[in-house]
Amino acid sequence: MFLDLHQMTVPQKQNWLQYAVAPRPIALASTVNSLGQVNLSPFSFFNLFSSEPPVVIFSPSRRVRDNTTKHTLQNVEEISQVVINICDFDIVQQVSLSSHDYASEVNEFEKAGFTMEKASMVVPPMVKEAKIKLECEVLEIKALGKKGGAGNLVICEVLCMHVDDSILNAEGNMIDPQKIQHVARLGGDWYCWVDQQNLFKINKTPVQPGIGIDALPAYIRQNPSLSGNDLGKLAAVSAIPAIDNNFSYNMIDESQLINHAKSLLEQQKVQEAWQVLLRSEINK
Amino acid sequence: MFLDLHQMTVPQKQNWLQYAVAPRPIALASTVNSLGQVNLSPFSFFNLFSSEPPVVIFSPSRRVRDNTTKHTLQNVEEISQVVINICDFDIVQQVSLSSHDYASEVNEFEKAGFTMEKASMVVPPMVKEAKIKLECEVLEIKALGKKGGAGNLVICEVLCMHVDDSILNAEGNMIDPQKIQHVARLGGDWYCWVDQQNLFKINKTPVQPGIGIDALPAYIRQNPSLSGNDLGKLAAVSAIPAIDNNFSYNMIDESQLINHAKSLLEQQKVQEAWQVLLRSEINK
Repeated sequence: MFLDLHQMTVPQKQNWLQYAVAPRPIALASTVNSLGQVNLSPFSFFNLFSSEPPVVIFSPSRRVRDNTTKHTLQNVEEISQVVINICDFDIVQQVSLSSHDYASEVNEFEKAGFTMEKASMVVPPMVKEAKIKLECEVLEIKALGKKGGAGNLVICEVLCMHVDDSILNAEGNMIDPQKIQHVARLGGDWYCWVDQQNLFKINKTPVQPGIGIDALPAYIRQNPSLSGNDLGKLAAVSAIPAIDNNFSYNMIDESQLINHAKSLLEQQKVQEAWQVLLRSEINK
Repeated sequence: MFLDLHQMTVPQKQNWLQYAVAPRPIALASTVNSLGQVNLSPFSFFNLFSSEPPVVIFSPSRRVRDNTTKHTLQNVEEISQVVINICDFDIVQQVSLSSHDYASEVNEFEKAGFTMEKASMVVPPMVKEAKIKLECEVLEIKALGKKGGAGNLVICEVLCMHVDDSILNAEGNMIDPQKIQHVARLGGDWYCWVDQQNLFKINKTPVQPGIGIDALPAYIRQNPSLSGNDLGKLAAVSAIPAIDNNFSYNMIDESQLINHAKSLLEQQKVQEAWQVLLRSEINK
C-alpha cells in the first residue's frame, strides 16, 4: 500500500504515522505557570536525543480539532522547567486520566490521584508514584508549524534524575528493565508494556564488525531453511570459525542438522550453530 | 537513588538515560552521499513529533569514544533525503548487523543481507524487507553540542509511506499492531518486541473528561484493595453512574464484592464494576 501524505487529511496523516512509528515511550510532564498553577500531561512524541549534553525532547502538538495549544506548552513558555516522569504499568491508568482535557486551573495531580513531591533543582513537582523522574531545564522551544497538528519541540537538558530502589538490579548500580514495566504508545487506543516475556538481548555493536551476510558461504546464505534473523546472527561473528574437532553431535541427516543449527541460534549459541553448519557442509 | 548528571561521566549519563527513556522505536535510516554511496544504519534516538507538517526526527550522535560523526550524518549533510525503514521482529538481527562500524564505502545493505528497492520520491533506496518505509526530505539538521555524545537532530518531513499489505487490518484500511511485531530499544543490550501478549487498549481521551480520582467516593478512593490503576479506570467515567436495579450478582460478603469489582475492571467492564461497588456501599 502506497500513501502520498500530500493527498491525506491531517487526521489521516496522524493516524497512519502513529500506527507506523511505534512503540513510543511516554513522558508524563509536570509543569507550572507564572501563577504557580501545576499541570500534568502525558506525551508520546518523546525520546532521548543526546547524552552530552543530556537532552530529551517532547512535543505538545497544536490540537488537530481546533488548532489550540496545550497548557503544558503555555507553562514552559512562562517557566522554562519541567519534570519528566516515566510511565510504567503500575500507573498507566492514572497517566491516561491525566491526559483528559481539564480546565487550566485544575491540577491533574489531583484528578489522576498522584502525589506531588518537591523536586531537587526545579520548581514543578515530581510524581511521587513514578519510579523514574528527570528534572529538566528547557533549553529551547521550537515550533514545527502553525496549523492544527503542528508539533512544538520542547528541548530539555536533564539536570538530575531520581530512580526508585525497587527497580534497580541486584548490584544496585543500574535500572533492571525486567523490574520496571515500561509502558509505550502505539496507534489508536493501543499501548504495550515491557515484561520478561517480550524482552530479549542482542550483543552490542562490537569493535570488530561482523563478516556480513554477503560473506557467508553460499551453502549457508542460500539455505531456504535459514531466516534473515538466523543469517544475521551467523554473520555477526568477526571471522568464520575454524572447525572444532572436539565439538560432537549425534545427528546424521542433513535436514536435521539445519534444524539443530536453528535451534542453537534460537538459544543464542552462535558458535555451536557454526560448528553444526560447518560439519553439515563436510558431510555433503 | 538520586543522580546529579553534572557529577557523572558521559558513558554513565548515556547508560542511565538509555535505561530510563524506553522503549525507543527504531529507525533504520537509508542515505546516500554525493558520490552515490549508500549507507544504512539504525537509530533509536527517533520518534514522531508532528502530524502537520508530518515530522519525524532521529539523531546520529557524535561517538562517545572518539567524538567522530557517523556516515549517516555526513550523508544527509550532502544529500538531504532519507528513507526511514521501521524495525520489526523479522529483521531485527539484520538491523543490528547494519549498526556495525563498516568503512564508508561499504554498503550495509549487502552486509546486512537486505535488498535495495527504488524509492518513489527520494534518491536513497528503501529496505525491501521492511514492512513500513517513510520517504523523507530533511528540513534541518540541528547540532545539540560539540562533544562526544552530542546529538544531531535530523528533522525530516515525511513525503510518502509504503506499508506491506500483510500487516494491514481485516478492513485493509490501517496497520494492525498485532500483525507487525514492532521492535524497540531499551538500555544496554536489551530490546523488546510487541506482540498480542503485551498489547492492551485504553479508551482514547474522551471529549468529556473523567470525574477524576479526587471525585471518587471516599469508600472507593480509600479502599486499600483498589490499586491506582483500578481507581484510574473508575475515575475515567464522566459521571458517577446511578444504581441499576436490573444489575444482579450473587455475592454477599464485602471482601468478595471488592474482588469481584477488581476482576470486572481487569476485564475492562467499568460500568459493571461501578454497579458492584455502589451496592457494596449500600450493603454496609
